[in-house]
Amino acid sequence: MIPLDIEAVRGDFPILQKPLPKGLPLVYLDSGASAQKPQCVIDKEREVYENYYANAYRGVYRFGAIVDEELEGAREKVRQFIRAEHSDEIVFTSGCTMSLNLVASGWGKRNLKAGDEILINEMEHHANFVPWQQLAAQTGATCRFLPLTDDGRLEMARIGEVLSDKTKIVAVTGMSNMLGTLNPIDELAKKAHDAGAVIVVDGAQSVPHEHTDVVASGIDFLAFSGHKLYGPSGVGVLYGKRELLEQTAPILFGGHMIDRVYKDHSTWASSPAKFEAGTIQIAQAIALGAAIDYMGTLGMDKVQEHERNVLEYAYNRLQEIPGMRIYGPGVEHRGAITSFTIDGAHPEDLAQLLDRKGVFVRHGHHCTMPLHDLLGVSATVRASFGVYNSRDDVDALMDAIQFACQRLRLT
Amino acid sequence: MIPLDIEAVRGDFPILQKPLPKGLPLVYLDSGASAQKPQCVIDKEREVYENYYANAYRGVYRFGAIVDEELEGAREKVRQFIRAEHSDEIVFTSGCTMSLNLVASGWGKRNLKAGDEILINEMEHHANFVPWQQLAAQTGATCRFLPLTDDGRLEMARIGEVLSDKTKIVAVTGMSNMLGTLNPIDELAKKAHDAGAVIVVDGAQSVPHEHTDVVASGIDFLAFSGHKLYGPSGVGVLYGKRELLEQTAPILFGGHMIDRVYKDHSTWASSPAKFEAGTIQIAQAIALGAAIDYMGTLGMDKVQEHERNVLEYAYNRLQEIPGMRIYGPGVEHRGAITSFTIDGAHPEDLAQLLDRKGVFVRHGHHCTMPLHDLLGVSATVRASFGVYNSRDDVDALMDAIQFACQRLRLT
Repeated sequence: MIPLDIEAVRGDFPILQKPLPKGLPLVYLDSGASAQKPQCVIDKEREVYENYYANAYRGVYRFGAIVDEELEGAREKVRQFIRAEHSDEIVFTSGCTMSLNLVASGWGKRNLKAGDEILINEMEHHANFVPWQQLAAQTGATCRFLPLTDDGRLEMARIGEVLSDKTKIVAVTGMSNMLGTLNPIDELAKKAHDAGAVIVVDGAQSVPHEHTDVVASGIDFLAFSGHKLYGPSGVGVLYGKRELLEQTAPILFGGHMIDRVYKDHSTWASSPAKFEAGTIQIAQAIALGAAIDYMGTLGMDKVQEHERNVLEYAYNRLQEIPGMRIYGPGVEHRGAITSFTIDGAHPEDLAQLLDRKGVFVRHGHHCTMPLHDLLGVSATVRASFGVYNSRDDVDALMDAIQFACQRLRLT
Repeated sequence: MIPLDIEAVRGDFPILQKPLPKGLPLVYLDSGASAQKPQCVIDKEREVYENYYANAYRGVYRFGAIVDEELEGAREKVRQFIRAEHSDEIVFTSGCTMSLNLVASGWGKRNLKAGDEILINEMEHHANFVPWQQLAAQTGATCRFLPLTDDGRLEMARIGEVLSDKTKIVAVTGMSNMLGTLNPIDELAKKAHDAGAVIVVDGAQSVPHEHTDVVASGIDFLAFSGHKLYGPSGVGVLYGKRELLEQTAPILFGGHMIDRVYKDHSTWASSPAKFEAGTIQIAQAIALGAAIDYMGTLGMDKVQEHERNVLEYAYNRLQEIPGMRIYGPGVEHRGAITSFTIDGAHPEDLAQLLDRKGVFVRHGHHCTMPLHDLLGVSATVRASFGVYNSRDDVDALMDAIQFACQRLRLT
């Protein structure tokens, strides 16, 4: 396989062309929070607004028709990208959080009752944790926890202790946003189905970085956001198997999602309209299609190989730092994320000092408080990599960490 | 007052600079569905993505800080625009529909019980109708209907028949998206408060066209969308009085909206974070701030006067057409919307023929099925006006209608 042409890729992202004050190059290592946007995505949104903008699914006039065609084209691109069978299984939402809440509230409340169980685990992002906690509180169901290994993986050998015919939902992230752990989704799906449960996958981190095939993996519901997939902010996706979406109640009511509104009751349209109340994220959903085209042109195989290469280099180099502690598994079980602490350095101080060198990382609990509780730390620093990051960025991170450690008198 | 410089305004909207095929000028008369975007709004989104994009409320690095500042700046612009007291009363949402659902579900479910009443009416858009129908079904409360007059206004003289101390919510549109009716919000707010009810105003149509002062009008909750206010798609606003937002439960759970997540329960942040789970509509909310700046530069007084002038001209000229029936009140009670039918012409045929002349109008039920049932029509044609429309557009509409009537052999 010809490797990714990283210089060409970097050239596609206008924000990377602009040095910071004092000529510092931008070293953006926060793609796990949100990815930067290639020119084609930015241009696509502008194209919509400047050339044929109209509301969707409403007008017979020509701009309305173009917008509808562009939106359905974007939906079809999403379908192909995650290898779903039918485009009516693809729901545009306001984001991954909305997608997960839609499953918990729209499918979960209808299908769970007291005594039922939801299988989650402590590495989940709050967006794939709190909705299940709420669902349990509302239905009388119980959240069970699949234990984690010391190196931050799901302890699959113990799944029999917590998965049973009481389990109705297995909710799991494809890739941990803090540990970077890649979870065995295919195996989990099989075990969930054997127990009679559905599997809900939080793909916010995995979909931008790994091949996704919902059918081959046996995924029932998949949620992900556009903005982490190099698309615009403000749009996300929920995939659901057709028969499961049919069982799912809408959670937002208004225009477009209805079939007929009477004075005393209403009936609903079928999916995806049923879940897309109000004006859809018009320009954002269309531009998400452009982001998917872009990733397709690069090739997800190449993206995956490139990011693994950068990750491996980062993982090895970071260990050169005295007092460095990297959380989570080795590179063979990990996507392009490294969260760490350095003995004696407060994560916030570290992030601030790195910023002085133009290296942008995140610090804090990364919306995974239960995981930080389990790890016994209140905060970590996270460097996460996107398609535009290279080994040079890792070298810049290393230099900046050395600068920070000197400032913090740790060396 | 110096009138609006309509040529300068039109020059601010790039889509209006591009003729349609065969050199036809674009006559966009569907601002009621969604407004076109001025260059400054399109540029602002691009500025975010090209210059300082990052996720919000999360990073200490400089782009994170810029994004937070821009977002809070936009929130403050919204606050000033609707004259709210506190910026924590301004919640960014995915749209007006989401805002209304948040009130119905988050405030309504907590505060209504069997026997309580919700006062709505038949001119409401489905987004301000179906959520209350659902709330009633879920709580055992009852929807009562304030009758409409023959000319499509609220029959205020009969409000005593349907408003009482059983009423907990009065939900009403500031301006009907079909009839154009401007409702007496101040009077309704006073009567609602006297009865001990809260008033929820659907401002989707009124906020872009009329001065809004939530405090002076006594509005408890106000919902509106960004895309009808010349901002991007995918973002909306919920205003709520501080003490009411405190009583409102979040309906989406995930990152940012929490205070602390434990393994077995969670606590929430305060407003607005409590209602902004997950990644906010970063570029869209910031660009909505630019749209509000733009409207401020034009001056809402001038905008209002200009649109009334265009409306009056349209209302008068449309009546020249044989068989024309305009729904709703006279111009003195109406915003910049005219919905009509022409005897013998199917609304869809009419809209399609108008499109051939480059005149873009909507046809259908305009998400107001109960209103169409009341009026005894299944569909109407709607011409709605924005800040960029002029009398020339009305003349083009007239010519196009005459062309359509000839084609339909009505003349």
